Amino acid sequence: MAIKLHGHPLSPPVKRVVACLEEKGIQYEFVLVDLFTGQQKKEPFVSLTPFGQVPVLEDGDLKLFESRAITQYIAHTYATKGTPLVPNDPKKMANVVVWIEVESQRFDVVASKLSFEILIQPKLGKTTDEGVVDQLQEKLAQILDVYESRLSQSKYLGGDEFSLADLHHSPIVNNLMGTKIKALFDARPKVSAWCVDILGRPAWQKVLQSMKFDWPANYSTSK
Amino acid sequence: MAIKLHGHPLSPPVKRVVACLEEKGIQYEFVLVDLFTGQQKKEPFVSLTPFGQVPVLEDGDLKLFESRAITQYIAHTYATKGTPLVPNDPKKMANVVVWIEVESQRFDVVASKLSFEILIQPKLGKTTDEGVVDQLQEKLAQILDVYESRLSQSKYLGGDEFSLADLHHSPIVNNLMGTKIKALFDARPKVSAWCVDILGRPAWQKVLQSMKFDWPANYSTSK
Repeated sequence: MAIKLHGHPLSPPVKRVVACLEEKGIQYEFVLVDLFTGQQKKEPFVSLTPFGQVPVLEDGDLKLFESRAITQYIAHTYATKGTPLVPNDPKKMANVVVWIEVESQRFDVVASKLSFEILIQPKLGKTTDEGVVDQLQEKLAQILDVYESRLSQSKYLGGDEFSLADLHHSPIVNNLMGTKIKALFDARPKVSAWCVDILGRPAWQKVLQSMKFDWPANYSTSK
Repeated sequence: MAIKLHGHPLSPPVKRVVACLEEKGIQYEFVLVDLFTGQQKKEPFVSLTPFGQVPVLEDGDLKLFESRAITQYIAHTYATKGTPLVPNDPKKMANVVVWIEVESQRFDVVASKLSFEILIQPKLGKTTDEGVVDQLQEKLAQILDVYESRLSQSKYLGGDEFSLADLHHSPIVNNLMGTKIKALFDARPKVSAWCVDILGRPAWQKVLQSMKFDWPANYSTSK
C-alpha cells in the first residue's frame, strides 16, 4: 500500500516530513487537508489524529502524527534507502538525538514564533509586533551562538554527516531566510554555511517545488 | 567507567533521567550541580553542555545533554537490562515515539508552566498568577481529554506496555499531584488510573527517595 501524507503546503511540520520522504526517495500520495476551511478539525481527518493537526502519515495500517515522530519512523524503517538520516552507531545516534532535541526544545520554540510573527500575522490582517520580534531575536542569537560553536566542531549538528537533526530545521530556516532575521544567521560564518548547505540539498529544492502555496487573494482583508 | 549524572534534585528533567536509570537498574554516580549558586553556568559544568542546564550524562567518553535524548540513549543502549522501555518492533516503536513527542510538544509545554507557577513562584518570593493558572488549566484539560481517549484504547500511552512515553511524564505529573491541578487528572478515570500506575512504580518511588530536596530556610525572603 502506498504511503499517504495528509498535510498542507503552508505547514512547516508537513514540509519537514516531505523533506524526509524526498531525501529517502520514497513515493507518496499527498492528501491536501484544507486548513482554510478547517478540514483538520473535522471528520474524516480527526479520526486519524486526536489533536486535529497536520501532518499525518499512513503507511499501510500504521497511522502516525507529530512530524518528528514521522521522520524518525521513516529514517529507521527505510534506513537503507536514499540518504542515511540516522547513524547505525549507538553513540553517534545519541548525539543526533541530542540535536534533534535541541531543535525541538530550543530552536523551534523561538524560530517558529519569529516566522509566525513576521510572515503569518500580516497575512491574517494583523500587525507584526516588533517588540516581540526583538525579544525573540535576542533569544535566537544566543541559540545560534551555540550552533556556531557546535558547527566549528563538526560539519553538521549531529556529527560529520547530514542527519535528521539538520533536516528538522529546514522549513523554519527557509522561512526566516526571507526576512530580516537572515542577518542573525549571516553574522555567524559556520551557521551561514550550514544554512546554504541544508537549503541547497536537492531534496529540499524538491520540497520547495512541490509545496508551493499561494495565499488566497485578499485573504487578510476578507476575514 | 561508571555512569555519571550531573544534576539537581529539584529539576524535573533530572528526575526523568534518574527514573530511567532506576527502571534499568543501572548504577550511577550523582554529581550535584548547585543551581542555587549558579554552578550550571560556570566551569567545569559549562564545558559539558553548551546551554548550561542540567541534566548531563557521562557514559565513558560520551557526554549527553537534553533529558529526553539521554533517556532514549539509555533505553536503546541498555535495552536488555531491567525494564524494557522501548519496543523492538518498528511499528510499536513508532507509536511510542509519537507519544514521546506528544509529551514533549504538548503536555510538558503546559504542565511544566503550571508546576512552575504554582510550586516554584512562591518559593521565589513571587505570587502565583491565578489568571495564568486558569488559562493553562483549560489547555491541560483539553490535552487530558485526548489522553483519556488514548488510554481507553491501550493501557499505556505508547501501547500496552509501559515505555519511555509514560516515564517522561512522571516528574511533572508527580509535582501536579500535590496541587489543585490533581482534580483535572482525577476527573478522568483512565488518566487517573494511569497516574496511580506510573507513580506507584518501584523505580519512581526510588527517585522520590533519592531526589529529596529541602528548600533553603527562608529562601523566598532571603533574596
